Amino acid sequence: MISFNIDNISNDLKQVLTDKINNKTKPLGALGMLETIALQVGLIQNSIQPQIKKPSIVVFAGDHGIAKKGEVNPFPQEVTAQMVLNFVNNGAAINVLCNSNNLELHIVDAGVNFEFSNNLIIDSKIALGTQNYEDQPAMTLAQCEEAIQKGAEIVRKIHTDGCNTIGFGEMGIGNTSSASLIMSSILNIPIEDCVGAGTGLSKPEISKKATILKSVIKKHNVTDPLDILHTYGGFEIAMICGAFLAAAELKMTILVDGFIVTAALLVAQKINSAVLDYCVFGHTSGEQGHQKMLSHLNATPILNIGLRLGEGTGAALAMPVIKASVNFLNEMASFSDANVSNN
Amino acid sequence: MISFNIDNISNDLKQVLTDKINNKTKPLGALGMLETIALQVGLIQNSIQPQIKKPSIVVFAGDHGIAKKGEVNPFPQEVTAQMVLNFVNNGAAINVLCNSNNLELHIVDAGVNFEFSNNLIIDSKIALGTQNYEDQPAMTLAQCEEAIQKGAEIVRKIHTDGCNTIGFGEMGIGNTSSASLIMSSILNIPIEDCVGAGTGLSKPEISKKATILKSVIKKHNVTDPLDILHTYGGFEIAMICGAFLAAAELKMTILVDGFIVTAALLVAQKINSAVLDYCVFGHTSGEQGHQKMLSHLNATPILNIGLRLGEGTGAALAMPVIKASVNFLNEMASFSDANVSNN
Repeated sequence: MISFNIDNISNDLKQVLTDKINNKTKPLGALGMLETIALQVGLIQNSIQPQIKKPSIVVFAGDHGIAKKGEVNPFPQEVTAQMVLNFVNNGAAINVLCNSNNLELHIVDAGVNFEFSNNLIIDSKIALGTQNYEDQPAMTLAQCEEAIQKGAEIVRKIHTDGCNTIGFGEMGIGNTSSASLIMSSILNIPIEDCVGAGTGLSKPEISKKATILKSVIKKHNVTDPLDILHTYGGFEIAMICGAFLAAAELKMTILVDGFIVTAALLVAQKINSAVLDYCVFGHTSGEQGHQKMLSHLNATPILNIGLRLGEGTGAALAMPVIKASVNFLNEMASFSDANVSNN
Repeated sequence: MISFNIDNISNDLKQVLTDKINNKTKPLGALGMLETIALQVGLIQNSIQPQIKKPSIVVFAGDHGIAKKGEVNPFPQEVTAQMVLNFVNNGAAINVLCNSNNLELHIVDAGVNFEFSNNLIIDSKIALGTQNYEDQPAMTLAQCEEAIQKGAEIVRKIHTDGCNTIGFGEMGIGNTSSASLIMSSILNIPIEDCVGAGTGLSKPEISKKATILKSVIKKHNVTDPLDILHTYGGFEIAMICGAFLAAAELKMTILVDGFIVTAALLVAQKINSAVLDYCVFGHTSGEQGHQKMLSHLNATPILNIGLRLGEGTGAALAMPVIKASVNFLNEMASFSDANVSNN
């Protein structure tokens, strides 16, 4: 039984924080989204001096049964494991962005079809990849619940180590297909409108992907959030769903990445809608379905610069804006501090 | 006589850089604007390993004759000097953002109506504020040329000290009016479409501002870029114009801030259009005219988060994305480095 005890954020300090923001030496509202983020993080931490502590990215990797056939994915399934090794060898985009922005990076094997022997990888393997949902559910309900719990445990451990601001990323060849299936099922949007280029399909290949996924949707026809998640996978998405819920339970600020991570959030907010209070949206992905997800969530992301890579790159790249928002709240002078005339 | 010797960027390394970007361990194009910025900075520096050195923000401050009457500006003119002191006392938004993103900050008195005695301020004062262009040109042509040269000299000094990546900011109560007049004159757009809320005018006040500026445009009716600049001011805008031209001459990467700074760029690109090769656009301002300026320049800015503060805050906030772009080019593994299968 999946249950998380998430409080909605308290609005006790809303007026005090708003006054503090409005008394800074700038015209009212002139720092735009920095002001709304500063307010949100202040409310999340229930503090007029919120702090960003050990900001971290956690990348969850898993393989997908459907990807073995290569019909929905231009890259072969082996690339998931190869990229996990690239992560631990510091060679991927997410490594560069975490180094560039001073973020801690954690890599999790949620269910890659490869036996790693590398102690830099957090071993949370559920299985050697999911089943192909063309034939059967991607995972059992028990595996799905196990993945959610393991994702939650990983976040609890990172929180215990001092982190209060976190972003999630993913790696899994074929996982835009899972995300599209989840999106279509949760939001009741036709699958054709949820399918995009992924890592680089051509237009005819996108049509083929849509056709395949349409018959998958028709075969399973699931509506319960956990049924949707275990039917369409993947292990990394289920683990991120649990990670979201645990992070919100712990009152962490969560920086949301792109299409696949937001699909996990769609499930998480069906399990407990209060999770959304803790989310700051990092970017709008170039993957076409993402904008519709964001619109459904009434989300206004920080960046819109055509990223469509995953790995948590959009979250990592937006982190300096979160830091700047909190620093502005804590460090900037008020009109009276600075002897500046207010209008 | 204003003359700058600016080379267009060389495309010699374009193919090599493009191949380097495309061979990184990611789908083609998946890092979106990071890829275009990495290419541009590589071309600017004519290097496949470009480096960001001593990234800096220079804030130019000046006063405006028209602001004494308080008809176009909600804040009184004294706020310009008060904010300059806030900058040197580390209390303003631009201080917080430079500290947050590890940027050097330089403050220039381009022509504030106050005699400072503070050696943290670069003294380039042309006069104690401009004249009111309702009555006469804001400055003489000689003053305008002096301001351009002084702006250029400041950039040359900062470059000599090791900086190769720079952004400009401004402070000057009333300067959205100058920027609107410059925009209208350079782009041939009716002044009503160039006027916005500035630091916080109401709708009727914006209409009044437009009416005042409409009669100013009618009175002077200037079309030559330098005539436009000296007629409408301000000293800080003229200095930023020179700063742009010198930075491009020195092949620096220039991070463009918001409405007023882009007005200076509109003049600079009329003097020498090659300056645009060196510009990366930091953000789209909440000030309504800015989007039209950007559209005219075919610019796609990094951030669009409702900032309308000036001071260089949009440039400072976008700098981590420039750093991340260069770091991705230099540090990320290729498919062959990482033994990842390409599709």
